[in-house]
Amino acid sequence: MSEPSAGLDRLFNPKSVAVIGASKSFAKTGTAILFSILAGGYKGEIYPINPKETEILGLRAYSSLNTTPTTPDVAIICVQAELVPQVITECGEAGIGFGIVISSGFGEVGKEGKGQEKEVLKAARIGGMRLIGPNCMGLVSSGASFYALMNMLIPMAGSASVVSQSGTIGSLCSIYGSEQGIGFSKFISSGNEVDLSTEDFIEYLASDPQTNVISAFVEGIKDGKRFIEVAKETAKKKPLIVLKGGVTAAGAQAAVSHTGSIAGSKAVYDAMVKQTGIIHAENEREMVDLVKAFSLLPLPRGRNIGVTGAWGGIAVLVSDACAKTGLVLPELSRKSMEELDKVLPPFWSHGNPVDVTGAGLGGDFDMLTKPIEILLRDRNIDAVIWMVPALGSLFERVAPRMDTHISKYFSKTALGSMAPQEMKMAKGIIELKEKYNKPLVAILIGLYGRNGTEHIRFLEENGVPVYETTHQAAFVLSKLVEYKEYLGALGN
Amino acid sequence: MSEPSAGLDRLFNPKSVAVIGASKSFAKTGTAILFSILAGGYKGEIYPINPKETEILGLRAYSSLNTTPTTPDVAIICVQAELVPQVITECGEAGIGFGIVISSGFGEVGKEGKGQEKEVLKAARIGGMRLIGPNCMGLVSSGASFYALMNMLIPMAGSASVVSQSGTIGSLCSIYGSEQGIGFSKFISSGNEVDLSTEDFIEYLASDPQTNVISAFVEGIKDGKRFIEVAKETAKKKPLIVLKGGVTAAGAQAAVSHTGSIAGSKAVYDAMVKQTGIIHAENEREMVDLVKAFSLLPLPRGRNIGVTGAWGGIAVLVSDACAKTGLVLPELSRKSMEELDKVLPPFWSHGNPVDVTGAGLGGDFDMLTKPIEILLRDRNIDAVIWMVPALGSLFERVAPRMDTHISKYFSKTALGSMAPQEMKMAKGIIELKEKYNKPLVAILIGLYGRNGTEHIRFLEENGVPVYETTHQAAFVLSKLVEYKEYLGALGN
Repeated sequence: MSEPSAGLDRLFNPKSVAVIGASKSFAKTGTAILFSILAGGYKGEIYPINPKETEILGLRAYSSLNTTPTTPDVAIICVQAELVPQVITECGEAGIGFGIVISSGFGEVGKEGKGQEKEVLKAARIGGMRLIGPNCMGLVSSGASFYALMNMLIPMAGSASVVSQSGTIGSLCSIYGSEQGIGFSKFISSGNEVDLSTEDFIEYLASDPQTNVISAFVEGIKDGKRFIEVAKETAKKKPLIVLKGGVTAAGAQAAVSHTGSIAGSKAVYDAMVKQTGIIHAENEREMVDLVKAFSLLPLPRGRNIGVTGAWGGIAVLVSDACAKTGLVLPELSRKSMEELDKVLPPFWSHGNPVDVTGAGLGGDFDMLTKPIEILLRDRNIDAVIWMVPALGSLFERVAPRMDTHISKYFSKTALGSMAPQEMKMAKGIIELKEKYNKPLVAILIGLYGRNGTEHIRFLEENGVPVYETTHQAAFVLSKLVEYKEYLGALGN
Repeated sequence: MSEPSAGLDRLFNPKSVAVIGASKSFAKTGTAILFSILAGGYKGEIYPINPKETEILGLRAYSSLNTTPTTPDVAIICVQAELVPQVITECGEAGIGFGIVISSGFGEVGKEGKGQEKEVLKAARIGGMRLIGPNCMGLVSSGASFYALMNMLIPMAGSASVVSQSGTIGSLCSIYGSEQGIGFSKFISSGNEVDLSTEDFIEYLASDPQTNVISAFVEGIKDGKRFIEVAKETAKKKPLIVLKGGVTAAGAQAAVSHTGSIAGSKAVYDAMVKQTGIIHAENEREMVDLVKAFSLLPLPRGRNIGVTGAWGGIAVLVSDACAKTGLVLPELSRKSMEELDKVLPPFWSHGNPVDVTGAGLGGDFDMLTKPIEILLRDRNIDAVIWMVPALGSLFERVAPRMDTHISKYFSKTALGSMAPQEMKMAKGIIELKEKYNKPLVAILIGLYGRNGTEHIRFLEENGVPVYETTHQAAFVLSKLVEYKEYLGALGN
């Protein structure tokens, strides 16, 4: 851990990679990872290592590391635990810089495994090799089209990065994120962290020009002092979202058998959050919600929120959610009030939230879009929460429960013709987003989930996040405000 | 409000219904409601009332209430606000028992509207008519196949009932619920509640044999004392889940312009929750999550939870979530430990959570299912949280980002053949659920949302709820425990 993290460049941009333990059987993790590397479109050289095969997945297989045409930059090690030290020794002798140890059966299975970890580290140190894992799922580096995960996931490319001691939580974060318009630069499943640790990866990502937002799931922090230093330096440069597992006695107990981590007390972690500017996620949903918000939104100048939509009950809940998370719904400027009076029906709410009432659902949603622009222009308003209809897609769900001779009328109803209007509205919103540099967060009104809602995907891919609940929308904005204030206090 | 709520039977089981304000234009709410009544398959007589038409949506239209063949049990009133008092007077003269006033422009638009509400109520009292609304979206009574909502939604039929001062929040609850296997008996959008109030509907639903779970969204409570009495009596019989809007100053302000409600202080509401056995939902997601849990699950005997799955990081977060919500992960019985040793690989976690590790994903998921049965049998365990894989459906999302000549290998991988195994597993789980009468709650491991996950829908439709996050699973179980304890303290 004394080497500078900048030395990790070759890990994330390998010219060639060996997969030790790939075979013809898809039941083997080595084969799954090899498949994933191919499926992700990696452009470097790939060397499957297997003494019994000459060809695997259409690639030439090599009997040993001595027979590959070039020295691989990275070796992915998928052999049984007891063979790992020997394989690492061979990698070191071959001059390979990095080993990603997928194999499990180490510290997470008790004392014996902990001993085994020491041997692994010793072999790596002798060979001058840096290790990721063991007991990890692999690594993604989208800039190099390098997707090497044993679960074969290929997240969308972009600029969020994740480091996770749990491969599952990192994977779910990157896949849930990909479904919601967030692209990823790096994902490191760091496993038991016998060598390279969360701190090392965060330090690297802090300086990585391809990474704008960093998210970490940690169970155990081995070097608390260094973690604080790294987190502090990182949070000055980019948002660092941390989800900590094992903050309760029960969770800490579970962490021991998961990654062999000593989770540390909640009090220590809470103090860490306060000192460092870390953005704290309470659970895996908050982690994804925050990665999305920090990936897509500019930071607001302050905590004054404008709210608008055609659904009064939701406006009430948004107002509650804002107040609960420390946000403020200020009065609107006189100018905004006058402009709203001009474009809205007489019975609009005449205040913030701007409830345009059901009248906003007629025509082409102009009445929903206009208040958004007025709010974005208002100098009293730092960010806008709006309600996006996803009603067109309701039909496909309602239709099966509908009498057939009735459903023929459906296309004549408002719902039957809403989908194209919704897309038109979304395009208008993206124009507004580009014109005004204020955070614009949507709450989905329609179907649970996103089936058939193309305009929602369009919005998110173009930088306007959509959340499913009032709480989520207010929560992420409150965290953007807190981070902005943290930077402000530092003089940034 | 002096009449007994039992008198509402006719409202929910009308033999005939008049829709006043239906026309040939789908831009009119009356037409939308008429359409919804038809689409829902209502078997009674339907009388569209419109002096200018002879036929609407294939039904004979009537020029006035005097010309209908029978006296309608219910009149749905969709005319302009200023015409409502006169229409109600006519309904009263015709002997119609119930009016559902969809029209808006009353208390929610200020003083003048409040005056208008008084006139409406006066007309109803003179004619001996009971009113729902005004400013409401309508009503659903699935037992009568009566779906009369202006947004034309047709929730799945079942035994949960919703009363909501916000039509949108009630609608979203019933539609989100329908997507997750929850069926609904009644949904009342109660609007401004000039006459019949939330308390009246809750009282009716408490005695309604078709309703097993009641959920309410309230902004303002007009008669706090009666609300407490009704809630107390109701909670003795069935779960009563309440989401209160306007608990902050900002939310209360928004409620005034939404339903004209005076929301009352949070302190008063909190005291109400304590006294009554109400199950408190903090936001709209919690409301749906709770309706689902109380609809599908038996009450647990206690707060001892068994956790199992193949994903260690999730096990850590579940453990944290249980501890945070007051649940306990007890040690397993010696018998369970021995049984688990027999069926699991040697490196399983040897404790609760039962982490079977990635080894559980091979074969036909037997290794995931067996620990669930062992936990359900364990006398130390009152409820089980398990992790359900939804990995088969990942492929359709990953595939588009995959090289075409590579994707042909995909069917040979574990992911490529997982969907049928997942369905087989789900069927086994339903057998276990029926054999042991303990709550069984799943956490989804796979895609965000439920696209293409048939086995998830199968699980929920057969009584095993699936949640997307660790927090949700623990939260709903903690609320089931609290309610069970509340009933226990009452001697039930």
